[in-house]
Amino acid sequence: MTMLTVYGDSISGNCLKVKFVCGRLSIPYRWVETSVLKGETRTPEFLNLNPAGQVPVAVLADGRPLAQSNAIMLHLAEGSDLIPSDAYDRALMLQWLFWEQYSHETVIAVRRFHKAFLKKPEAEIDPALLPKGARVLQVMDDHLASRRFFVGERLSLADIALVAYTRWAREGGFDPPPHVQGWVRRVEKELGLDHAA
Amino acid sequence: MTMLTVYGDSISGNCLKVKFVCGRLSIPYRWVETSVLKGETRTPEFLNLNPAGQVPVAVLADGRPLAQSNAIMLHLAEGSDLIPSDAYDRALMLQWLFWEQYSHETVIAVRRFHKAFLKKPEAEIDPALLPKGARVLQVMDDHLASRRFFVGERLSLADIALVAYTRWAREGGFDPPPHVQGWVRRVEKELGLDHAA
Repeated sequence: MTMLTVYGDSISGNCLKVKFVCGRLSIPYRWVETSVLKGETRTPEFLNLNPAGQVPVAVLADGRPLAQSNAIMLHLAEGSDLIPSDAYDRALMLQWLFWEQYSHETVIAVRRFHKAFLKKPEAEIDPALLPKGARVLQVMDDHLASRRFFVGERLSLADIALVAYTRWAREGGFDPPPHVQGWVRRVEKELGLDHAA
Repeated sequence: MTMLTVYGDSISGNCLKVKFVCGRLSIPYRWVETSVLKGETRTPEFLNLNPAGQVPVAVLADGRPLAQSNAIMLHLAEGSDLIPSDAYDRALMLQWLFWEQYSHETVIAVRRFHKAFLKKPEAEIDPALLPKGARVLQVMDDHLASRRFFVGERLSLADIALVAYTRWAREGGFDPPPHVQGWVRRVEKELGLDHAA
């Protein structure tokens, strides 16, 4: 029986989600640094693990691969208190996980990548991303105005998924509103992380 | 006890996913047609149901709302044979659900919407969408070359999520490869749908 192996890029919030869950649940794992910018997700070996050419990929202890950060988190956290036991709360957690990938990551993470890693000048970055990101952060802020965590008043995978890029939002030129800032610090504390920005 | 209510736009594959699951599992529901193009997802009443301003929204029999097509499907199908009982197969199903929202819908559905509903001329549609869509369909075709369904050789939510826009791919100017075409017909037959294209 070998250990869980995670192929991930340390500059990717999607990849760090898996690290956060393993840390929280004391799941031992081996990390294989896999750079998107260096093309390491396009090699034949990597595409054999994940034909979609995306990190993270988890290779489970039995050798079977699994892709998509939120699917990996859901698999590793099954039966733990990171997944609410109440059916409606569990559904809300899934709602936020899908919203994160569709509406949040595609704006907050993408602008950070263009700005901080591809080093594009402002004029070459899609101008729609800044107002879209402000709306995304406002949806989060409104939700958090009366809540400590996204679902059920305790840490769940919804918080871990959403904090991954929100804590780096300033690197993308975004300005997180106050309730979002307080929540970022709460989640970072729960996960034992240094404050990111 | 009232019935499940689904706020959905009939031109949206995301919304039809919920209809397909209700049909398959004989769940009674009330459909409230909600047009994105007419701005019906931006009214104060609708934003009160879903602050993200997106359809579909399910209002459960107890009155609580739930957004995100794939989260709604997962909630309604809990305990049914549309969700694999094996933990790894269940994780693979979730992998495809997240891939569908991140890599498939954002290309296949978006180009169809611009072309067939916003009636944009080709020159005004992001030229990256056509080659991206061809790659997305090829990933599906490679996977389906040796399989009848996406996971576990039987119909699951992965097929329902992916078929929703794939069966309309031609409306977006895409040309589905042969294994994808065969799978679309199989899933349509399972769901009792007329062949779309």
